[in-house]
Amino acid sequence: MANKAITERDVDFAQWYTDVCRAAKLADYSSVKGCIVIEPNGYAIWEKMQEILDKKFKELGHVNCQMPLLIPENLLKKEGELVEGFAPEVAWVTEGGSKKLEERLAIRPTSETMFCDYYATHVKSHRDLPMLYNQWCNVLRWEKETRPFLRSREFLWQEGHTIHATEEEAIKETEQMMDVYEWFHNEILAIPSITGRKTEKEKFAGAEFTLTNEALMYNGIALQAGTSHYFGQKFSKAYDVKFTNKENKEEFVYQTSWGTTTRMIGGLIMVHSDDYGLVLPPRVAPKQVVIIPIGKGEEAFTKAEEIKKELLANGITAYVDNTDKSAGFKFAEAEVNGIPVRIEVGERDLKEGKIVFARRDTREKMTEDIDINIVEYTKTLLDIIQHDMYERAKERRDSLTFEAHNMDEVREILETQPGFIHAMWCGDEECEVKMKEIKGCKSRCILENGEHIDDKCVCCGKEAKHHVIWGLQY
Amino acid sequence: MANKAITERDVDFAQWYTDVCRAAKLADYSSVKGCIVIEPNGYAIWEKMQEILDKKFKELGHVNCQMPLLIPENLLKKEGELVEGFAPEVAWVTEGGSKKLEERLAIRPTSETMFCDYYATHVKSHRDLPMLYNQWCNVLRWEKETRPFLRSREFLWQEGHTIHATEEEAIKETEQMMDVYEWFHNEILAIPSITGRKTEKEKFAGAEFTLTNEALMYNGIALQAGTSHYFGQKFSKAYDVKFTNKENKEEFVYQTSWGTTTRMIGGLIMVHSDDYGLVLPPRVAPKQVVIIPIGKGEEAFTKAEEIKKELLANGITAYVDNTDKSAGFKFAEAEVNGIPVRIEVGERDLKEGKIVFARRDTREKMTEDIDINIVEYTKTLLDIIQHDMYERAKERRDSLTFEAHNMDEVREILETQPGFIHAMWCGDEECEVKMKEIKGCKSRCILENGEHIDDKCVCCGKEAKHHVIWGLQY
Repeated sequence: MANKAITERDVDFAQWYTDVCRAAKLADYSSVKGCIVIEPNGYAIWEKMQEILDKKFKELGHVNCQMPLLIPENLLKKEGELVEGFAPEVAWVTEGGSKKLEERLAIRPTSETMFCDYYATHVKSHRDLPMLYNQWCNVLRWEKETRPFLRSREFLWQEGHTIHATEEEAIKETEQMMDVYEWFHNEILAIPSITGRKTEKEKFAGAEFTLTNEALMYNGIALQAGTSHYFGQKFSKAYDVKFTNKENKEEFVYQTSWGTTTRMIGGLIMVHSDDYGLVLPPRVAPKQVVIIPIGKGEEAFTKAEEIKKELLANGITAYVDNTDKSAGFKFAEAEVNGIPVRIEVGERDLKEGKIVFARRDTREKMTEDIDINIVEYTKTLLDIIQHDMYERAKERRDSLTFEAHNMDEVREILETQPGFIHAMWCGDEECEVKMKEIKGCKSRCILENGEHIDDKCVCCGKEAKHHVIWGLQY
Repeated sequence: MANKAITERDVDFAQWYTDVCRAAKLADYSSVKGCIVIEPNGYAIWEKMQEILDKKFKELGHVNCQMPLLIPENLLKKEGELVEGFAPEVAWVTEGGSKKLEERLAIRPTSETMFCDYYATHVKSHRDLPMLYNQWCNVLRWEKETRPFLRSREFLWQEGHTIHATEEEAIKETEQMMDVYEWFHNEILAIPSITGRKTEKEKFAGAEFTLTNEALMYNGIALQAGTSHYFGQKFSKAYDVKFTNKENKEEFVYQTSWGTTTRMIGGLIMVHSDDYGLVLPPRVAPKQVVIIPIGKGEEAFTKAEEIKKELLANGITAYVDNTDKSAGFKFAEAEVNGIPVRIEVGERDLKEGKIVFARRDTREKMTEDIDINIVEYTKTLLDIIQHDMYERAKERRDSLTFEAHNMDEVREILETQPGFIHAMWCGDEECEVKMKEIKGCKSRCILENGEHIDDKCVCCGKEAKHHVIWGLQY
């Protein structure tokens, strides 16, 4: 029987999602409209994501810093497209220290402005370049409709902002960081993702181009997972970020930015979880193994502790649940919290030389001899779970991937079962706007080397230029 | 010759401090009044501090979470003393999404409010207790006079907020966390600190009592380093945080909070650094050892890389400076950045079977045989530096520690050379206010088991109750 606190996924997906967030104690609503409390179980996942990404960023030469939360209005307004894109979503500080401020201060919706302001006074020569800065912080965007993790007025993220001496190098950085996100989503979060370029309409305000990594949720709705932007010299001209190049001439720097957010916790839930609660891929699970001793004697408990020690010594995060709750209660708790592997050390089993393993993802139980190499067995099991979760998510995504050649087909798909829709596009924004009339369908990305699946644009029937993935989005 | 970019410490301490911040690229002013940019070198120290403290917090059973940045005005106002204490320093968001808000939202100056609001709906029974939550985040306080790290409108910190079933347990937590800060300051930051209790006037707004850890800067000005507050049931009554106790009766929880901030980076500078730049204790140095190959051949470079590998494999964070700068430039750069140990691998030295070590703290150079166990030697050297830095700081502090028995003595000390002043106090707030007339002298803390150094209050001459440390403060 599924968890009583959780609505069935196939009955009401939105409610199921909220129920999993609550039941697994990942996040809860707060007294501030549109803002959530990230509870310890949710925050531990974010810490794990940070640990993995931060290590990768640093290996690639990036360093962390911290820019101010507040941005003076005048500074924000220097780059027209950026402010146009973000103005409707900005929260403004107008009073401080019991006084009305002379100038409004925006709470950062993103920090291109502050990085440019800093770089402008800190870059002189090509010898100072590249500057590869990143920050982990909170940002605010005054969204109208919110949903825990996926869309929240305040969220946590990392934003990388780099400046380079040449266009070539900056474009390479933009692409490299997209590769990092793709690796992170596929290999760590077990979320199969597709990388492409955003259309002019959908790209980041002020960017020359935006690369994006797109994932598909269990219900066929798309989630923009990570983005990497190339700015060329747009911002550096607006904010006067110049350097002396090798030819001893003044030149504006070439810039990138890239980010991913706590929304990926929402992505994890919507791709992998089930009616029993959270399901976490082992590589991003803060706790990978729970060991539950069963029985009143010392023996099971001692054995459980012994196994824990061995697992910990081998880099597997394991813990023993030795609270005084019932075994059944412990099973359910570990299940709703998405612990990938459960090891049951039963007094009776021990006497028979047996030990029980259970997978969270398939809920399969395996009885094994107590004499097996438990460390190796667990390691292999975790690898299998990681692999299988990816494969199942990929199968699901593939089964929700469609091809359309005209608007009727698009409509039929979106009204029956939404998903990724592959279709050709002429490149005209008018057609993009028309597509949106069908339930809000948007271009997800242009496939850079996409197959030419039709000669005609799915919308207007004119000559097709781009292979685009379309879909509904969170 | 000292670093040209740095004013001499004994000539102008305030300017020296700012110069070190700038020269070591720790922080810089930003376009937002009173807010700084924490640059990569400064942020790396904060990351190291976080890593060490976070590990300790978790060992003691605490978990991390994240509360919203914004606090609705009505919610903030529920606990009268807190709002009175912080109201003059609050920044208010009054507009969001292009609309005037119905209710002002405060940017958190501290988060007791939000934690109480959360706890109120999440605690039911004594079985849910204790809840030991912490968060790493940014806060804002609209300070009038600011100084990089030490006092900034926005700063980074951790704030622990715990709730307990009994007064005894909560007080124990308050004390335990003070012990953690004392350990952190003394053992990790090599800053000798004194723990005591704040007076009623100086305690945290709304607390029953506040424990504090007080450090003394090189110039004799005190710095409040970490604080731990016991709230009793004050907040839990204001925010209705109740639980059913073991006797099945409703009771309000007992609460604590404790925090330390990026200001400790300022403390590190002001205690240890010198006219050559930053000096960092090895345990909190993001990079402990720089290896500098000297000479044009491959040999020095190969040896440097070999040493780096060995040190890294043994838990010492070492790097090779293989840029094309001159050796002299590299020395100066490592020096201003406070790298505790420099290893010079010179082509000529190698031929003579020699290698050179240099300590940042004393600027001493040691020529050793290349055959020594370099890992052991470096480990020992780092330990010695850590130890010596603490001892030197303690000597300095002790030499700036005075005893006073009347107001004239207090005045003489503060006008000659400020420092920690030990003096007895009657416990009357009037005397505390009078002391402040002498150059702003404030009570730092009451020593819980302080010696009875006089029968009379230093101010009014009436019967003395408490042994208090007084001083000027940042």
